[in-house]
Amino acid sequence: MTVTPEQQAEIDALRAQAQPTLRATSPGMEAHLYRAHPVLDHGFIRVVDYMGDDSAIVQAARVSYGAGTKHVSNDEGLIRYLMRHWHSTPFEMCEVKLHVKLPVFVARQWIRHRTANVNEYSGRYSILDREFYIPAPEQLAAQSTVNNQGRGAVLEGAEAARVLDLLKSDANRAYDHYESMLSQDGQQGLARELARMNLPANIYTQWYWKVDLHNLFHFLRLRADAHAQYEIRVYAEAIAACVKDWVPLAFAAFEDYRMGGVTLSGKAIAVLKRRLAGEVVTQETSGLSKGEWREFEAVWG
Amino acid sequence: MTVTPEQQAEIDALRAQAQPTLRATSPGMEAHLYRAHPVLDHGFIRVVDYMGDDSAIVQAARVSYGAGTKHVSNDEGLIRYLMRHWHSTPFEMCEVKLHVKLPVFVARQWIRHRTANVNEYSGRYSILDREFYIPAPEQLAAQSTVNNQGRGAVLEGAEAARVLDLLKSDANRAYDHYESMLSQDGQQGLARELARMNLPANIYTQWYWKVDLHNLFHFLRLRADAHAQYEIRVYAEAIAACVKDWVPLAFAAFEDYRMGGVTLSGKAIAVLKRRLAGEVVTQETSGLSKGEWREFEAVWG
Amino acid sequence: MTVTPEQQAEIDALRAQAQPTLRATSPGMEAHLYRAHPVLDHGFIRVVDYMGDDSAIVQAARVSYGAGTKHVSNDEGLIRYLMRHWHSTPFEMCEVKLHVKLPVFVARQWIRHRTANVNEYSGRYSILDREFYIPAPEQLAAQSTVNNQGRGAVLEGAEAARVLDLLKSDANRAYDHYESMLSQDGQQGLARELARMNLPANIYTQWYWKVDLHNLFHFLRLRADAHAQYEIRVYAEAIAACVKDWVPLAFAAFEDYRMGGVTLSGKAIAVLKRRLAGEVVTQETSGLSKGEWREFEAVWG
Amino acid sequence: MTVTPEQQAEIDALRAQAQPTLRATSPGMEAHLYRAHPVLDHGFIRVVDYMGDDSAIVQAARVSYGAGTKHVSNDEGLIRYLMRHWHSTPFEMCEVKLHVKLPVFVARQWIRHRTANVNEYSGRYSILDREFYIPAPEQLAAQSTVNNQGRGAVLEGAEAARVLDLLKSDANRAYDHYESMLSQDGQQGLARELARMNLPANIYTQWYWKVDLHNLFHFLRLRADAHAQYEIRVYAEAIAACVKDWVPLAFAAFEDYRMGGVTLSGKAIAVLKRRLAGEVVTQETSGLSKGEWREFEAVWG
Repeated sequence: MTVTPEQQAEIDALRAQAQPTLRATSPGMEAHLYRAHPVLDHGFIRVVDYMGDDSAIVQAARVSYGAGTKHVSNDEGLIRYLMRHWHSTPFEMCEVKLHVKLPVFVARQWIRHRTANVNEYSGRYSILDREFYIPAPEQLAAQSTVNNQGRGAVLEGAEAARVLDLLKSDANRAYDHYESMLSQDGQQGLARELARMNLPANIYTQWYWKVDLHNLFHFLRLRADAHAQYEIRVYAEAIAACVKDWVPLAFAAFEDYRMGGVTLSGKAIAVLKRRLAGEVVTQETSGLSKGEWREFEAVWG
Repeated sequence: MTVTPEQQAEIDALRAQAQPTLRATSPGMEAHLYRAHPVLDHGFIRVVDYMGDDSAIVQAARVSYGAGTKHVSNDEGLIRYLMRHWHSTPFEMCEVKLHVKLPVFVARQWIRHRTANVNEYSGRYSILDREFYIPAPEQLAAQSTVNNQGRGAVLEGAEAARVLDLLKSDANRAYDHYESMLSQDGQQGLARELARMNLPANIYTQWYWKVDLHNLFHFLRLRADAHAQYEIRVYAEAIAACVKDWVPLAFAAFEDYRMGGVTLSGKAIAVLKRRLAGEVVTQETSGLSKGEWREFEAVWG
Repeated sequence: MTVTPEQQAEIDALRAQAQPTLRATSPGMEAHLYRAHPVLDHGFIRVVDYMGDDSAIVQAARVSYGAGTKHVSNDEGLIRYLMRHWHSTPFEMCEVKLHVKLPVFVARQWIRHRTANVNEYSGRYSILDREFYIPAPEQLAAQSTVNNQGRGAVLEGAEAARVLDLLKSDANRAYDHYESMLSQDGQQGLARELARMNLPANIYTQWYWKVDLHNLFHFLRLRADAHAQYEIRVYAEAIAACVKDWVPLAFAAFEDYRMGGVTLSGKAIAVLKRRLAGEVVTQETSGLSKGEWREFEAVWG
Repeated sequence: MTVTPEQQAEIDALRAQAQPTLRATSPGMEAHLYRAHPVLDHGFIRVVDYMGDDSAIVQAARVSYGAGTKHVSNDEGLIRYLMRHWHSTPFEMCEVKLHVKLPVFVARQWIRHRTANVNEYSGRYSILDREFYIPAPEQLAAQSTVNNQGRGAVLEGAEAARVLDLLKSDANRAYDHYESMLSQDGQQGLARELARMNLPANIYTQWYWKVDLHNLFHFLRLRADAHAQYEIRVYAEAIAACVKDWVPLAFAAFEDYRMGGVTLSGKAIAVLKRRLAGEVVTQETSGLSKGEWREFEAVWG
């Protein structure tokens, strides 16, 4: 189970206590506050707090005494301009705090985004729960034959069954032994900071993660991308759905300029210009490497 | 004037619009929101937004599903423990956004604190206002004769009058010429990005500054300190007064362990232990340099 | 004068002392070490130290025990791949330390790049030199009529002469008064930390600036760009010339993918595809705003 | 084995190639370059590159054109002054790059130090080696009964034997299954990015880690401390031994002011002053909590 009844009761208690505030408030985000959005088999993301809204971006860009501009259309135009021209500081003026439950191997990728604040559940101080990520059958994929760091076809039949069985039985055995090493029943009991080393990377951990909107967009661009590993991508997508409700104008600009955009090299620009002039360009005549040509064709045909 | 009537009207409008929120709310900070707290002759600090309260520190430290602990006394003990043992990440879970109006030479010191978000009023895009910091007579101090980067006695009589006259007349002349270079009346008018180079470092600028509580405490420790230049110290003190109302438990711990604390070197510990054992220790027998001894005696007599 | 004879002697002394080292060494960068490359009228950049070379990027990407790959062509291909796919961490494994002399208003833009280490000459501790940036006649430009933060036509005749005269005389008068306020001749002498507030933003300051190659590339992309203010762009260009000699493969990839590249929004991709299909697209039918269309046409005609 | 013969040959090749350089060079650090210093049962730290020396700290603090001061004794005094007064920026002007092989559970603590550059061996791209940390018998400790995140007495007899057996057999079984899931012999073979999730936290990983001296000192203060987990402390101690040879003056100041120093709260200062005045102070009359009093007595008796 993702959230226990006791935890759900704590969440419900927080959602029952509205307070008046003079701060910028985002109705879309209030609806998400504290709720656990399930991700993978036992994970979740929960918005625990937020600061700012679309107007706060405009307000900071203008260093103003009041709120954003008078008209939403003006806010939208300015936000798109800021995004297009990489004026990142106004987006840094919004902040969000999340509670995330995630497998350790996902956490290890995630933490590489350094410009964020993190408080992780401590395996030195506490005993970890018996919860492991076991991929759904459609996610049990073979090693890609074309991409050294990607997945290929889905495993089937006996191979899939054997993998699932190994993952489950190894996880459970490792946890049984973790518990038995910790036990103080008739023995001293190994230190928690040592016993945890027996646990595999698909065990779940939890953390509070706080980040500004600019750095969150950077995270989403890399981790909601098709090249990201599936298991972190689903977290990025769940977060993106909340961000869309929080700062709809900024998110729309992000989708157009970042997620839906491409970066062209000087060489690729030259190829496109030759094509626009009617020339047929091949990889051999393009000046692009085979890898670049493959990526170029994926966008431009 | 620090804030114009139009600006005050914008501030009042924001203070008139309470909204319900499910977020953690600090009554002490709500009272400060948007208000301009005057600093120096034309400057101010204004709290524009905040995230979190004392309970949010505890909540993050525990990676919990609900709010802080059940009892304020437990929150206090944990917060003091975290501060004492340099567990900084829970304090990073609170954030504050300020609007600050300050002289450029203060801004240049301030910006050296890199772990913060800043949006400054742009002298490329806009025309700066005719507002300069002119020290109050009691702040017109001579160069210190003992401290290479500090102040000594207050200037008096003709010297003080001459300094004030020079600062005022140079600032006004520089601004007159700034305006006349920019003017498009009968001439092209110099680019704003160039004309601003004529303005002295006591002109006021403005920015939005957003920082987490841990880094804000670091800023306050260095800038509210007696060794900081007076003109930045008064900003730090004005901010500290707001922080005290925002997160009273964390601020009390900060005052005890950081502002009111001292760091002793290994050599200084040895000296204190000899003193505790009844020995009379002099600088010569202490192993401390003259500078260290002076600083040691300032605390311990 | 940019560098005094005494300073030049110190530089020459450092250039006369080669030592053996086992570290990665870049012959192109050794030739630059310590030399002052003049920028603007009194400024310079000097490479004071560096860490790594092109092979070090490859070595880090491979987490290898030895140097880079066996063949330069392999190094080049990998470096281009890393740059294309935004794998930034291997580029962070090279570092450079610069000594820069620059006008204060340039320093204020520069310092906004936070992921770098800075040690600035202190106006609290030391007396600043009488050196001011006065633009060359061809840089005395009017405010742009189309770009709120840019320059237009060059000023001419009497207007240009008047501007130059104001900048020079105000700078000199401000410095005269700075000196006279500091003077301890027959008076106490104002504290340095106060007197400096009288100095205009075109006075020169100096700092040591240390940054990794990834963040330096980001700096160069923004500051060597045509939209950057001329006075910071010339610094970026002088640094870029050194980087080209230091890590030629990485710099070539940077030029192709970043400096010579463009980012297209989802909407702009759609327009290009319609064009490639033979359709004539106008701003009205493009879905792009006027500003976006102007920028789009600047690249694609 | 920590380093294979092939890897050792690569290291030896690098140590055989001295080049002349004009850069600041530290003879003490040259002796360490590239060599693997063993840590734990299969880990190591290797210095791969460095920038700067003691003089470089002084040079940056003075923003000078030449090297440090004329006399080593002046350098030492200035370095101690900088350390004592928390002037951190000159220490940031030195940089070191390490290659580290370490268990994953150690890596997860280490990475929390965010102000550093990291390139880790990729389990998506490559197959990890069969190398696991198994504690030496004297490190197999029970959970501490007084410290929630620490170790107590060493396990003995049958309990110790059982723990060692579980750690070894679980690690080997997990790795056997990792290999068998990856195998493409008669089956598709699971993607590497998935198979790695079966591996326990005591498997070794590797990374390049680059950090400036100020942040390295912060790392060492926290991780070479008696409260740090033993398995990261031994890495910190191995690094500290290299730093001592690299920048002996800065390291000596660090040892005196940071490692050998203590921070006293305002309340603790008051207690010490009462003691110095001859008063007998107990916990009850001290104003300190029980935890604080215990820590206070550990230093002062």
